[in-house]
Amino acid sequence: MVNDTFQECEGGITAAKGFVAGGLYCGIRKVKKDIAIVKSDTPAVTAGVFTLNKVIAAPLQADKQQLQKSNLCSAIIVNSGNANACTGERGMTDAWTMIETTANALGLPKEQVMVSSTGVIGQFLPIEKITNGIRELAEKLSAGGNKDAAEAIMTTDLFSKECAVQFNCGSSVVTIGGMAKGSGMIAPNMATMLAFVTTDAAISHSALQKALNTANSRSFNCISVDGDMSTNDMLLVLANGTAKNKEIQEDSPDFKKFLAALEYVLIKLAKMIVRDGEGATKLIEITVQGARTEEEAAKAARSVANSNLVKTAIHGADANWGRILAAVGYSGIDFNPADVSISINNLPVFKPNYEIVLDEAKAKEALSQKDITILIDLHQGSAKSLFWTCDLSKEYVNINASYRS
Amino acid sequence: MVNDTFQECEGGITAAKGFVAGGLYCGIRKVKKDIAIVKSDTPAVTAGVFTLNKVIAAPLQADKQQLQKSNLCSAIIVNSGNANACTGERGMTDAWTMIETTANALGLPKEQVMVSSTGVIGQFLPIEKITNGIRELAEKLSAGGNKDAAEAIMTTDLFSKECAVQFNCGSSVVTIGGMAKGSGMIAPNMATMLAFVTTDAAISHSALQKALNTANSRSFNCISVDGDMSTNDMLLVLANGTAKNKEIQEDSPDFKKFLAALEYVLIKLAKMIVRDGEGATKLIEITVQGARTEEEAAKAARSVANSNLVKTAIHGADANWGRILAAVGYSGIDFNPADVSISINNLPVFKPNYEIVLDEAKAKEALSQKDITILIDLHQGSAKSLFWTCDLSKEYVNINASYRS
Repeated sequence: MVNDTFQECEGGITAAKGFVAGGLYCGIRKVKKDIAIVKSDTPAVTAGVFTLNKVIAAPLQADKQQLQKSNLCSAIIVNSGNANACTGERGMTDAWTMIETTANALGLPKEQVMVSSTGVIGQFLPIEKITNGIRELAEKLSAGGNKDAAEAIMTTDLFSKECAVQFNCGSSVVTIGGMAKGSGMIAPNMATMLAFVTTDAAISHSALQKALNTANSRSFNCISVDGDMSTNDMLLVLANGTAKNKEIQEDSPDFKKFLAALEYVLIKLAKMIVRDGEGATKLIEITVQGARTEEEAAKAARSVANSNLVKTAIHGADANWGRILAAVGYSGIDFNPADVSISINNLPVFKPNYEIVLDEAKAKEALSQKDITILIDLHQGSAKSLFWTCDLSKEYVNINASYRS
Repeated sequence: MVNDTFQECEGGITAAKGFVAGGLYCGIRKVKKDIAIVKSDTPAVTAGVFTLNKVIAAPLQADKQQLQKSNLCSAIIVNSGNANACTGERGMTDAWTMIETTANALGLPKEQVMVSSTGVIGQFLPIEKITNGIRELAEKLSAGGNKDAAEAIMTTDLFSKECAVQFNCGSSVVTIGGMAKGSGMIAPNMATMLAFVTTDAAISHSALQKALNTANSRSFNCISVDGDMSTNDMLLVLANGTAKNKEIQEDSPDFKKFLAALEYVLIKLAKMIVRDGEGATKLIEITVQGARTEEEAAKAARSVANSNLVKTAIHGADANWGRILAAVGYSGIDFNPADVSISINNLPVFKPNYEIVLDEAKAKEALSQKDITILIDLHQGSAKSLFWTCDLSKEYVNINASYRS
């Protein structure tokens, strides 16, 4: 089952040993599951990353305080349908009420519970419905509750997003699993990205946070649907040590293994979010290689990914190398355009010294596929970076222009 | 006719004394006028700003060399239909050929001619057609040739863009006039922005460049259609001194007057470009006030203007203050969301302390207009900045996804 590196497995957020979860409908907004709880049997070392938006929702403010008090977390309570953002003092009170109710219902210390919300902003939570729901859900958590939890955190996502992997760590088998929700938009709301990951690895807090930062910088920080950043974005990883492996430190030989597996899970979840982007018909993977540094490669890739002109061209199956080159040109990095080569789905379209080798018929065929890869080689170094985005369609405009009606 | 400050007048690029212009069809691409010449009777002090894109088209490279050799310019030759970008050495040769042919045809020193191109990128110019056209056009320049010139620089613009103003400078009447072309897109091409301004003011080169930099930072640098930056963007101002005013220096009392008039012309042209943005149905003016510095205000306004979520919401007449606030939130400036107020077309929708005062019916009515103003007050200082953009429509996707077909 488990090979030298790692291998996918079932179970999502409850794939790792010692975790249970569940989700149910408590009546927040639409008739769909709208609260989820994830619980660890034992207090789990916890690391997180939060939105950099200056407009930060109440639950994230509470969580940041929680993590300052303690690195240990035993449960996460999440609601969809209402983001509890731009809700002032009442919003903070509601976030703490969700934490306290969950702690009481599960018999946990209050400082070991994290809270998360996604949905409409600028509206108060229907807090009674939520606290009633929490008490009901607390009785129903199970090792098979991963699917219900993954559904309960969805807003306008078209499919739920789960992934899990296993790998050997000494004589132990370590599992990392997670769930995410993506580019939903509930007016007046932002496209919030939430991801929760659990693992039974024994790992120090500093090693966990380091692995999370690195894996996040190569996954969720490398995707965009429309370039907007939400008030509620967050990503948490809980490690409960149930796998009984030797505790992983930053300099352990197993650290790289753990990082690779975590990165795999995060990239897989991140790509699902892009594929489910509003109105998206294509997943576009942009690779910039031959850069002087990974930072410069990432800057160039991000610039191409956020170009509406590139995204519409790909939507129309147009091998528009000019727009791609120009987006690299205004990314802020230094390079010589005469050195650049560009391929789309392995078909060279632009070679150094401005040699245009575009075969329109072949390009049209390549671009009619659902998965598009754009490879940009700057030919000035050996650093590389990947970025994922989706095409920009009329359906995106439809969804976002007329949601309220 | 002319009041204390300044007043609009007719004549565009030839409104100022001592300038002639013209435009004709020479056969570059489509059956429309495709070359334009602007000529000053006497050598004019010239200032320019050029694209910051690292991928910079051949004519701009030639012009930068020209301006290093001499601040004096007597003529500009512009072609549309082909951007002469990503064309390597042959492109540079063609740009110099356009300069030399124009200089010869008009009997001017070669170093007093500037060149500009817009249109398809990655294709060589049909240089013989262009040189023949230049020789023909050189015979036809006139003081009434402004409209032909303004039409000849258009690509997919739906209307030509001209503006001129006059003001008193001592006992002289000074005129500033200009033309621009905007957000056209000819595959595989970028939305190139070109603007040319002439004035009969006597003004020192340093004062002219300073005025241009300031006015540009409040006009063309404050507009976006899709956030993409072209390889060919340029803006030139020629001042030939024919008005015989006392030469304006950076510290002259008349400098402010000149700057105000130039800024008015550039803002007017810039707003026409936005209104003519691809697929645009609304012109959106974003004002950020109450900021600590003009730079911070500009950063916040730009972030809102480039948000696809804001642009689609406005397209759908949705008073989505949440998306506006969130875009300020990720602009990179520091502020307290609880202090912010937002109005749309003078209708308050969001007040400090997260007070939502949105009247949906009134908001829908206000947003159904063609001109939308968004006022964001950060309540933390007295600095202010304006930015203009257009809504994001399905037609934008249509134009840019299917242009080639």
